Amino acid sequence: MVSQTKYFLFFFIFLVLSKTVISARKPSKSQVKPCKNFVLYYHDIMFGVDDVQNATSAAVTNPPGLGNFKFGKLVIFDDPVTIDRNYQSEPVARAQGFYFYDMKNDYNAWFSYTLVFNSTQHKGTLNIMGADLMMEKTRDLSVVGGTGDFFMSRGIVTFETDTFEGAKYFRVKMDIKLYECY
Amino acid sequence: MVSQTKYFLFFFIFLVLSKTVISARKPSKSQVKPCKNFVLYYHDIMFGVDDVQNATSAAVTNPPGLGNFKFGKLVIFDDPVTIDRNYQSEPVARAQGFYFYDMKNDYNAWFSYTLVFNSTQHKGTLNIMGADLMMEKTRDLSVVGGTGDFFMSRGIVTFETDTFEGAKYFRVKMDIKLYECY
Amino acid sequence: MVSQTKYFLFFFIFLVLSKTVISARKPSKSQVKPCKNFVLYYHDIMFGVDDVQNATSAAVTNPPGLGNFKFGKLVIFDDPVTIDRNYQSEPVARAQGFYFYDMKNDYNAWFSYTLVFNSTQHKGTLNIMGADLMMEKTRDLSVVGGTGDFFMSRGIVTFETDTFEGAKYFRVKMDIKLYECY
Repeated sequence: MVSQTKYFLFFFIFLVLSKTVISARKPSKSQVKPCKNFVLYYHDIMFGVDDVQNATSAAVTNPPGLGNFKFGKLVIFDDPVTIDRNYQSEPVARAQGFYFYDMKNDYNAWFSYTLVFNSTQHKGTLNIMGADLMMEKTRDLSVVGGTGDFFMSRGIVTFETDTFEGAKYFRVKMDIKLYECY
Repeated sequence: MVSQTKYFLFFFIFLVLSKTVISARKPSKSQVKPCKNFVLYYHDIMFGVDDVQNATSAAVTNPPGLGNFKFGKLVIFDDPVTIDRNYQSEPVARAQGFYFYDMKNDYNAWFSYTLVFNSTQHKGTLNIMGADLMMEKTRDLSVVGGTGDFFMSRGIVTFETDTFEGAKYFRVKMDIKLYECY
Repeated sequence: MVSQTKYFLFFFIFLVLSKTVISARKPSKSQVKPCKNFVLYYHDIMFGVDDVQNATSAAVTNPPGLGNFKFGKLVIFDDPVTIDRNYQSEPVARAQGFYFYDMKNDYNAWFSYTLVFNSTQHKGTLNIMGADLMMEKTRDLSVVGGTGDFFMSRGIVTFETDTFEGAKYFRVKMDIKLYECY
C-alpha cells in the first residue's frame, strides 16, 4: 500500500515537473492559446491628399528615388482605431507611431507604433513593431510590451489589408493575440 | 497514517501546481514587484536653438503643417542621463534614439531609444519604446529588452516632465521598473 | 518506512518548487544557454553612392550639422542577409528597417529592423532594436519578438563590423542567440 502510494506520487511529481518545464520553456506552438484576443480596424488618412481637418497621418520624408514604390517615404500617424470598418465610428484606441516603405521593386512597409487605449473599458497601451509584407495576404508583427490594462503583455498582431483607396486612405484589420498576460 | 500522508502530499502537490501555473501565467498586477527599480533624469538640449557645443539632439525633418503642434518633427538624440536634476552632473548613462511629435491639436510624442550604461557600476543597455502622452502627468513606456547587466530584462518606464524651457531644453524624470530580470 | 517516503517526497517537492521559481524568475546569466544560435551576415549597399540596380538602402534625411559624423542621417534598408561573407550569395533572409547616426564626436548608430525569413528552412520574422556602439568591437542589441518559426522569441544579437568600404558598402556579422523559444 505504501509502495503504491509512492509510485502514484512519483508519477504525479513527474507530471508536475514536466508541466513546469514545458510551461516555462517550450510549449509547442499548437498548444499555445492566447490569453487575450481581439480584432481592431486601423484607419490611415493621408495629409496632403486629404486636408488638415480629416487627415490623421503625414509623410515627413521624400522618397529618394530608389525604385518606383515609395522606398524611403516615412509617415508619422495618430490614427483612429475602431471595432468596425467605419472610420467614423467612435475610436476605441489611437494608433500612434510611424511606417515607411522599404522595397525598390514592390510595395512593402515597416511599422512601429503604440495602441493607446483610453476608454471606460480599457486603459493602457500596447507597443508593436515589425515588417508589413504587403504582398502577403496576412502578415505577423510583434507585440513587444504593454502598460496599464496590458501590463507587460506580449503577443502577435496579424495585419490584413481591408481596403486601399489610392494614396488617400487605407484600412488594416488587426487581429491582436496576446500570449503573455499578467 | 498512510492515508493522512497521502492527503497532505496531495495538498502540497496542488499548491506546487497552482504556484507553477500562477507564476508562469498570471500573477495579478498588484502582486508583481519590480526586480530592479531606479530613477534617472533625461536631458534634451536642442541643436539650432542651442549650439553644437551644448546640443545633444537635432531635428531631422520639418513638420509638414498638419496642425500647429510640430506634428511630424523627428528628433534624433544622444542625451545625457543623470541621477539628479542637474544636466551637468556626471552622466550615468546616455539615451540614444529618437522621438517625434504626432498630434495635430496638442503636443504629444513617441519615443524609441536605448539607455547605454558604461560605468563601473553598470555596463549594458535597456531598450525602450512607447507613446509619450504629454497631456498626462505620468505615462508608461515599455522596456522591451536589455543586454549586459540588464540581460533580457523587461519592464516599464514611467515618464514625468520635470521641466520645459521652450524649444531649447527639457528634462524628463524616468522611473524605471524592471519586472523580468535574469 | 512511511516516514522515510514522506521525507524523500518532501525533498523532491522542494526540488520541484525551487526549480519552478528559478526557471520562472532568476536563472543566473552564466547558467542560461540559447535555445537557438546562428550567425548571419548583413550587407548594406548605399543608394547614391551605388546605383539603383545594386543599392539596397537609402538615406532619407540630411544630417543637420551637429558635428562631423553624420549625426541625424537616417537610412532605410531592405538588405540581403547571407550565411557567408559574400553579398552575392543566395540570401537566407532580408533585413528590413532603418538605422541612423547619432553622435556628434564619433561614428555611432542605432538600429531597428526585422529579419524576414522566407525559405524552405525558415519562415517567419525576428524583430530587433538597439544601439550600435560602433567604437566597441562587439555590441549587443535586443531581439524583442518573433513570428512564424520564431514565434514569440526573445534574445540578443551581437554585432561585429566585418568590413567597411567607405560610404558605399558595409557588412556586419550578426551572432543571433535566442534565449526564449516556444
